[in-house]
Amino acid sequence: MVNVGIIGVGLVGSELISQLAAHANSTPRISVIALTNSSKQLLSTPTYSPIDLSTWKQALQTQGTTANLSAFVDYVSNSPTPAIIVDNTASQEIASQYPLFLKKGLHVVTPNKKAFSGAETLYKEIVEEAKKNKKLVFNESTVGAGLPVISTLKDLIRTGDKINRIEGIFSGTLSYIFNEFSKPGDDKGKNFSEIVKIAKDNGYTEPDPRDDLNGLDVARKVVILGRITGMNLSLDTLPVENIVPEPLRNLATSSEFLSRLSEFDSHFDNLKQTAKNNNQTLRYVGVIDPIGGESGVKLVSLPSSHPFASLKGSDNIIAFTTQRFPNPLIIQGAGAGAAVTAFGIFSDILKIADRLES
Amino acid sequence: MVNVGIIGVGLVGSELISQLAAHANSTPRISVIALTNSSKQLLSTPTYSPIDLSTWKQALQTQGTTANLSAFVDYVSNSPTPAIIVDNTASQEIASQYPLFLKKGLHVVTPNKKAFSGAETLYKEIVEEAKKNKKLVFNESTVGAGLPVISTLKDLIRTGDKINRIEGIFSGTLSYIFNEFSKPGDDKGKNFSEIVKIAKDNGYTEPDPRDDLNGLDVARKVVILGRITGMNLSLDTLPVENIVPEPLRNLATSSEFLSRLSEFDSHFDNLKQTAKNNNQTLRYVGVIDPIGGESGVKLVSLPSSHPFASLKGSDNIIAFTTQRFPNPLIIQGAGAGAAVTAFGIFSDILKIADRLES
Repeated sequence: MVNVGIIGVGLVGSELISQLAAHANSTPRISVIALTNSSKQLLSTPTYSPIDLSTWKQALQTQGTTANLSAFVDYVSNSPTPAIIVDNTASQEIASQYPLFLKKGLHVVTPNKKAFSGAETLYKEIVEEAKKNKKLVFNESTVGAGLPVISTLKDLIRTGDKINRIEGIFSGTLSYIFNEFSKPGDDKGKNFSEIVKIAKDNGYTEPDPRDDLNGLDVARKVVILGRITGMNLSLDTLPVENIVPEPLRNLATSSEFLSRLSEFDSHFDNLKQTAKNNNQTLRYVGVIDPIGGESGVKLVSLPSSHPFASLKGSDNIIAFTTQRFPNPLIIQGAGAGAAVTAFGIFSDILKIADRLES
Repeated sequence: MVNVGIIGVGLVGSELISQLAAHANSTPRISVIALTNSSKQLLSTPTYSPIDLSTWKQALQTQGTTANLSAFVDYVSNSPTPAIIVDNTASQEIASQYPLFLKKGLHVVTPNKKAFSGAETLYKEIVEEAKKNKKLVFNESTVGAGLPVISTLKDLIRTGDKINRIEGIFSGTLSYIFNEFSKPGDDKGKNFSEIVKIAKDNGYTEPDPRDDLNGLDVARKVVILGRITGMNLSLDTLPVENIVPEPLRNLATSSEFLSRLSEFDSHFDNLKQTAKNNNQTLRYVGVIDPIGGESGVKLVSLPSSHPFASLKGSDNIIAFTTQRFPNPLIIQGAGAGAAVTAFGIFSDILKIADRLES
């Protein structure tokens, strides 16, 4: 029996709880004993009993008390059986507390990229505290959601393979935009600005699409994988190609940005045509390059026969080129969305539970 | 500290030992305490000390005793610390002893497909004995070598996803043959019989290529994945398209077969041309179809835009279509060869060791 405390019960957190509810009678046993959003928290009664996952929303509303992270963490960490904190937020503040969670004897599972892509001091502290306290920190869903990206990379490394290069399309949003904009063999097609608008209207982008187009989210994923590979990558120094046109970067609102983006359609069209003349397509990729030192995030042209060129929808794709896989090992599929993100979190929880049960 | 006894020290076994040797100073600690081939075995001295992995070949030659599987298994199972048997053979006889290994308290790791694709009684007995004795049986390398195929399928299932369809190119040999024979956009090209000869000359095929072309190896992998998915698949009833031309099936030798295969080049050329006329390519696929009941192994035509059509070399590719991944989750890469097979075995060993250490 493993007890779980869940921080963040929005889209991903709710989906995780419904996946956990469906697992209720299976082994290993997972019990949710506490959950919280930024305003309210629910600690189980009687103490350390499982929360009924079919009525948690109502219970949080009616029986929840004012959110108090420190009391929440104390409750979970005093659990009589091993316990896991799941952080479903994107909060830097919570991420900075992982070392504390570990010191208190908690395991950590999270799709929150902040701790693994931010300050190197925090990252190192987490790695050290996990080791010192023999606790696990699993973050499969920080890259490619539930796709087995981080677990595969760790397996390659710990069995002694040599990573020559990792290359991927790590953003569902930018995958969609360029898969639509620059298709192999397609001559016509919508303007860049139209596609960005459609993506926003369908909820594929951040509220301000510049937060996708600036490449920061992709950069975070490159830093996460690079650090696992043993590189000292950092957001401060990683070269990132921001594809928001310079004059639009400081506009105050996203609607101003969207209304003026069409001024730059010919710029993007030229890029597409140049690629097309070489039988290539545009793709926005992240690169981890432990050997050549060319890690970064950039808009590139790839031959139409390249596996990234035939990508569809908003899929992610990640290619590991290693000593044992000179033709890369490739993983592809949905890399965003509540169901697949929760799947990655749930898999991580089960992997920890497996190890605690043995 | 986990002790390991290795059965089978040919190509894959030797590569595994060299990967283990490179890991010697890392955690979790893995100690090889016994190894055997079909003629000789080496049990460590002093009892349960680690065998020196830099000199094992010589030691097996000079200090090895006559192989005796029952004495070998007794030695490993009496280990004072938890122990794993690794079966690197393709032997049905050894596979049939997994229930005994489990009863004796051993965990099992293997790339040997026999136990998981053969008689259902044996398969069920293994599943039950593993459960009863709380021991693990990991067989990642039975499908796609070290590609994370089985672990991903198990993660999907145990977190409650619903498998709608699994489709793959599961044979490196047949991947190579059809990737060469039927390329998207390629009009000319070698005859089918020439490509089979080249594949054989390069060591890509079994000694008799009919053992690849008959589809049995692919069928075994379909049965393995189907059973994990909860289906009652069996080699006896699975529809398998044997692409060895009927008149060549009973020829006594592989060289007779190869010398007469060119008589059927026009047959394969017609298939290719028919596909090509529809802008399609020929691929030899295995299908696990829990819903439609169309599981099987067959030569199919796929649109040139299909991810299987752009496959290269002898790569495997496996696509999981599920409730959460309506656009399939795809895993692709080398699915045969000693280095990647040993990688899968080694990963399985480490996953068991992780769980024993916690």
